[in-house]
This record gives sequence, C-alpha cells and structure tokens, in this order.
Amino acid sequence: MTPHDRLALALADDLAKVNETLHSYMQSDAAPRIRQVSAHLIDAGGKRLRPMLTVAAARLCGYDGPHHIHLAATVEFIHTATLLHDDVVDDSKQRRGRPTANLLWDNMSSVLVGDYLFSRAFQLMTITGSMPILAALADASATIAEGEVLQLSTARDLSATPETYIRIARGKTAALFSAATRVGAMLAEPGDAIVQAMHDYGDALGIAFQIADDLLDYTGTDAIGKNRGDDLREGKLTLPVIWALDKADAAERAFWTRTIGKGDVQDGDFDAALSIMDKRGSLLATADEARRWAGLAKAALQALPPQPLRETLEELADYVVARLS
Amino acid sequence: MTPHDRLALALADDLAKVNETLHSYMQSDAAPRIRQVSAHLIDAGGKRLRPMLTVAAARLCGYDGPHHIHLAATVEFIHTATLLHDDVVDDSKQRRGRPTANLLWDNMSSVLVGDYLFSRAFQLMTITGSMPILAALADASATIAEGEVLQLSTARDLSATPETYIRIARGKTAALFSAATRVGAMLAEPGDAIVQAMHDYGDALGIAFQIADDLLDYTGTDAIGKNRGDDLREGKLTLPVIWALDKADAAERAFWTRTIGKGDVQDGDFDAALSIMDKRGSLLATADEARRWAGLAKAALQALPPQPLRETLEELADYVVARLS
Repeated sequence: MTPHDRLALALADDLAKVNETLHSYMQSDAAPRIRQVSAHLIDAGGKRLRPMLTVAAARLCGYDGPHHIHLAATVEFIHTATLLHDDVVDDSKQRRGRPTANLLWDNMSSVLVGDYLFSRAFQLMTITGSMPILAALADASATIAEGEVLQLSTARDLSATPETYIRIARGKTAALFSAATRVGAMLAEPGDAIVQAMHDYGDALGIAFQIADDLLDYTGTDAIGKNRGDDLREGKLTLPVIWALDKADAAERAFWTRTIGKGDVQDGDFDAALSIMDKRGSLLATADEARRWAGLAKAALQALPPQPLRETLEELADYVVARLS
Repeated sequence: MTPHDRLALALADDLAKVNETLHSYMQSDAAPRIRQVSAHLIDAGGKRLRPMLTVAAARLCGYDGPHHIHLAATVEFIHTATLLHDDVVDDSKQRRGRPTANLLWDNMSSVLVGDYLFSRAFQLMTITGSMPILAALADASATIAEGEVLQLSTARDLSATPETYIRIARGKTAALFSAATRVGAMLAEPGDAIVQAMHDYGDALGIAFQIADDLLDYTGTDAIGKNRGDDLREGKLTLPVIWALDKADAAERAFWTRTIGKGDVQDGDFDAALSIMDKRGSLLATADEARRWAGLAKAALQALPPQPLRETLEELADYVVARLS
C-alpha cells in the first residue's frame, strides 16, 4: 500500500465528508452546466491529495472541530478551478486520461465554471470565521496566479534562472500544498512554530513534487495525462534544461535556442535533449534536487511529536521522489 | 454636470486614494505582464462607477475609517477580472474603444491576470477584518459566475423567461453593484435595515442599468464599445426579445427561431427585429421596466436621512435610464 493509500484509509471518514461537501457546493440550481463541468473533473478519480493534506494537518495538530472539512473542500475547489483555467491556457485535450472540459464543452464554460468554483471556495472558507486563515488562502491564490503568469511570460526565455523556476513551481504546485497544510494546522491553534512547520512541509513537498514531475517529462515512461516531451515542445524552462544551459557549449546553446527558444522542435530532438542533459549531469542534479526538497519536507515535520500520521506524511515525501530512481 | 461627475467631485479625495491602492496592488515584481495587462484596463478611462458606489455608501452611512478605500479597490478589481474573462468568453476585440487584452496579449494572459486580480481583491478585503463583509463579497462572486454560466447555457434558448433574464442581469451587473453599496454601508454598522436599503439600491440600480444597456443594443446609436445588434447576432435572450416572443404570431416566431435560435442572421434582420419589437410593444415595455427598477432604487434610498450625497445617488438612478427617452 502506498503512503497515499494509507493516508486515505486513516482519514476515510473525514474524506467522505469532504466529498459530500464538494458535491453539495458544486450544485447550482440556476445553471446545471456548472454541476456537469465540475463533476467531470471532481469525479474523475483525482487523488484528492490537497484536501488530504488539509485534513491530515488538522488531525496531526489535534483539531477536533468541523472546519477542516470546509477547508479541505476549499483547497480542492481552488485546485479544480486552476485545472479548468490551465487547460484553457494550455489548450489541453486530455487530463487524467479523459477529454478536458474545454474540449467537451468549450473554453467559455471552463473559464466561468472555474470562476464559480473559486467563489464557492471563498464561501466555504468564510464558514471557519477565521480571518488569518482567509488571509493565508488569499495569499496562496495570488502566488498561484502570479506563478502561472510568470511561467507564461518566461516561456522560451533562455535567461530564466533556478530562482525563477522555483517561483513558478511554488505558483503551480507548492503554494496550494503549503496553504493546505498551513490552514489545516491553523484550525488547531498549535502556535506559530507548528503552523510554520506544517507550512514548510507542504511547501517543500510541493516543490519536490513539481521538480519530479518536470524531470519525468524527460525521463518518465507514461505518466498519466502528460506526454513525455511536452515541456520541450512548449518551451518550458524547467530545472533539467536550466542546468544543462548553464554548462552548455556553443553547439548545445544553439540547440536549446532553436528548440526551447524558438520552438523549432524536430524528430530526434527529444533524444538529443536527453543526451545533452545526461552529458551535462543535469538529470542527476535535478533528481538530487527533488530529493533534497523531500528531505526538507521530512525535516519540517520533526517539529511535531512522533505519531503514525506524521510517519505517513514523511513516507509521502519519500514516495513523491521514489519514482525518480 | 452629470450625477456621475458630481459624485466623482464630491468623493474626489477618496477616489484618489482608491486609484493609488489599485496601482499599488496591480504590481507584481515577479511578473511584469500582470501590471501591463491590468493597467490596460484599469487606466483605460473607465468610469469607476462601482468603487464610487462603495465610497458613497460608506460616506452616506457616516463611516470615517480607512476601509472603504480597500473595499472600493476590491470591487474595481473584481469588475476588472470579470471584464478580462468576459472578453475571452465573448472573443471580444474592442472594449472602451480600445483593443481588448486578449487581442493585444492572448487569452491565456487575460484568464490568468483575471485570476490574479481576483486574488488581489480577496487580499484587499481581508484588511477590513470583517467576516460578514467577506461573506457578502463571496456570495456576490458566486452570483456573478452563476449568472455568466446561465447566460452562456441559455443563449439561443427561446424558452428563456423574464425570471431567467433578471437572474442573468443580476449576475452580469447587479450583484456587484449591490455588493458595492452593501459592503460600503456595512463598514459604518448602521443596522440591518440601512444595510438592506443600500443593498436594494445597488441591486435595483444595476438591473435598471442592464435593462437599459440591453435595450440600447437595439435602439441606441453608438454606445461606446458595444455595437448595435450584437445581442441579436450572439443569440442573447434579452428582455425586448423575450417579451416580443411572448406575443409573437407564427411568422414572428419563425423569425426569432431562425435568428436568435439558430444564429442565421442576414442583412435586414436587425431592422426586421426592431419593427417586430415595435409592433409588439416590447421596446416601450422594456424602457418602462428599466424606469420601474430605477424607481425602486430611489425608493430604497428613502430609508436614509436626506442629504446631498443621497440626492446625487437618486439622480444617478434617473440618469441611468434617462438615455432611453
């Protein structure tokens, strides 16, 4: 059993309530299409990783009220809204092995239902009555949108730095992970140090996850819903490329300029890219960097007393990068 | 001087601070494109009607703290975000006489910068520290998105009722107007009756505004940024059409089915539509309905003590429908 499955088992009662809340809040009497489009994503068998993190953080910190359910549904709705908008932005045709909402309905429905789910997320979080929790989620939302715009405006820009990459990874992934664990912890009011530790766990886990995902875009086999080589074709400056560029000779720089920089990707370029990255050591360096972030995630949890749930979260950090070796 | 100009003059100091806040919150160090896209809309000479309503409502109810500035900027950001998304949804090329952001940059930038501004709106409102105000804005956001999806999914549907139309008008326009006046009033804590009265004023003003706008799409001359006949071409079921359909004979029903229902709009159809609506009295009935809502807006204000600012808001309600005669 994976750590993910163990978490799902340990938190099954809570997660069933989260599902009920998701289904009740994605209803709209006025516009049935809202439920249809939402259900297409929410019932597509996603792993519910983010809501699980919120519930786990709340439980780990000793919370026993009802609001971790509302916040878990909040983060899942924010996640679903960003997926709907991302698929429009990337003009994606497939997600989780199924046609995307923008393909089944249209871009308009995806944009507007995303906005609706974002509003519902916002309604759900007000139920907690906690302004610091709302402020944390507002900050995360701004970081997410900022990261997405940054990714868009730095695509094909060979001067992108590792710092830019991490900022984008935070926006794409880690900001919602860290908000998920942070607000779950905040419910229990365990003190600033513990809240910060849970935030740092989510942040490092998210960055490890994103680095691994980006590495697998080159070295993976058949990651579900993502095709190997997408990032090369789309001109995304991910860590393996940024580090390969750092050590590139003139011929290699010309290769990256043509493919990533100008979008001229031909047959054989993917294998050539792999071979350059292998030669420059950037694949191994990227795997090491993902493992380093997973280590930071586990280290953050040491601020909490040992207990089975903490152990499962530690194993989850290892699991995220285990697929790299 | 229009009532609008009189409001701008009476509230000039507050509105200057709102502008400062807008400019400071639309900055993003990470992604300069955010500021560029935002500035394209925010500095395009919009009338700042919504933030003006928030500031006016706060002042009218006797508020003298700093938070009306944050909430006025909040509603302007929500408005700007919905404009960015609407232009993507409608594939618009022009707004306020200038090329749209989706045309100057791309759909992706409009979707993501809209999301960013929505997040910034959310950050701004948390500064007030008032959970009931946040809940009111969350409810308004959900109504807006719901109205937009409803409009999208009922386009070309000849069975749309006046009730559906009002629900869409609330989503497109009145929900943000009523949230703007409501949250402005709430800051002053003037009691539920006054808060409700300010809400009702914004709601009725917004609906009058939207009905007038939709009527002018048929009878207007050169409304800025909107072309006469757009709604006929896009198959939008607005009040003049809904009421004309209600009294249509067989030939007229066939005409509406072909044009609005099936999107087959040919030369001369716009004039034919006008002539049918004139014959069935739906243009006059629509103008009367807009005036009725303007009257409701003015009536709502009677709950407040008479003062110059209240008078200007009353004149604003008349002004919104004055262009119809």
